[in-house]
Amino acid sequence: MKDVVNEEKIACFEAGIKLGALFHQFVGAPVSLENARILEMAMESCMRLQPFVVSAEVKIDRERLKEMVSSFGYISLSGELIRARVTVKVGETLARAELYWDDEKKYPMMRLI
Amino acid sequence: MKDVVNEEKIACFEAGIKLGALFHQFVGAPVSLENARILEMAMESCMRLQPFVVSAEVKIDRERLKEMVSSFGYISLSGELIRARVTVKVGETLARAELYWDDEKKYPMMRLI
Amino acid sequence: MKDVVNEEKIACFEAGIKLGALFHQFVGAPVSLENARILEMAMESCMRLQPFVVSAEVKIDRERLKEMVSSFGYISLSGELIRARVTVKVGETLARAELYWDDEKKYPMMRLI
Amino acid sequence: MKDVVNEEKIACFEAGIKLGALFHQFVGAPVSLENARILEMAMESCMRLQPFVVSAEVKIDRERLKEMVSSFGYISLSGELIRARVTVKVGETLARAELYWDDEKKYPMMRLI
Repeated sequence: MKDVVNEEKIACFEAGIKLGALFHQFVGAPVSLENARILEMAMESCMRLQPFVVSAEVKIDRERLKEMVSSFGYISLSGELIRARVTVKVGETLARAELYWDDEKKYPMMRLI
Repeated sequence: MKDVVNEEKIACFEAGIKLGALFHQFVGAPVSLENARILEMAMESCMRLQPFVVSAEVKIDRERLKEMVSSFGYISLSGELIRARVTVKVGETLARAELYWDDEKKYPMMRLI
Repeated sequence: MKDVVNEEKIACFEAGIKLGALFHQFVGAPVSLENARILEMAMESCMRLQPFVVSAEVKIDRERLKEMVSSFGYISLSGELIRARVTVKVGETLARAELYWDDEKKYPMMRLI
Repeated sequence: MKDVVNEEKIACFEAGIKLGALFHQFVGAPVSLENARILEMAMESCMRLQPFVVSAEVKIDRERLKEMVSSFGYISLSGELIRARVTVKVGETLARAELYWDDEKKYPMMRLI
């Protein structure tokens, strides 16, 4: 029983690492409609390499990207634009978490789901 | 009871976020013996701003920094050089985690402690 | 004569490196009124370590920080908030450049000054 | 004549921005043989979005990657692994620059070529 509790805690910890890492690694990267897909794929590939990751999904919000775009046709990737989900597995225990932008809080929320 | 379990899981998740964020935000920053202290302080200050953080400590390994330093007198901050500890509090539940370099694994380990 | 031209080109190149590095290293870092000064100092210290840098100055815009702050009392450092100046010296040639936010272009401009 | 000199200076400045940005944005990203290509493509795509860029090429050193890889099968992207070239065009003036690792200096060199 105790081991399952520990696995759960480690799984939650690992899920947190992945979202914190994703956000702080890639925020600032130049992005436009042209390279949004390749950037999503690279971001997902980086998450999938990390320990315990079973699946990872990253979506860059194209509609908001169009609204925020600079005069130079692209923007620095920011919290407003990123939605991500990650599933990790520690022993037999799964943890699933997501990153999404909360407009009211003006904050990139991360939570277990 | 269930709430305590949930608080534990969230606390572990939040601790993970902080270490993942720290590493991926600051790796790459120019560092030498001259600015190691100010960089540690900035890194700690960034962790302390984040939700649920009770305390944060960052140590840049000066001995290893001296060994690894480039011809230009500094180096890009890397996993070999960073040791960090963070404590988060969710409700009444504390979680504590650390980041340290494992020479055998050649990897910046993160774990609940 | 040719050498002076080369020195000028290298100085301009080096100034560009420093501003590109600064922006992409630190964008995303958690910042509030509490740690803005320590973060400025760390950012300046990182620039000063780099080759050819004579002086570096970073200002985080407190007024705009207050406007943009999230419900959690801080924000991810972004282009809107950073103003920086750097002077590099290659041989006897100085180059000076700045980074500032342009509201109309919605872009962190970098230019030789 | 003066304009050409200015164009040259700006082109060199812009080339520097791109290499400084590339290095400090992507250092730290998880990389293995599996995602090296997608990461190269993402890095190139980010450079190409930036003002004045005519072409950009990024190579991650697979041989060195294999040597440096951690027990977890991947590594944080670091200066030892990145080679990049960028060409910018300002008016009619081209500037070309590269980033490469210098083993003796233990440093990611950037230079106009």
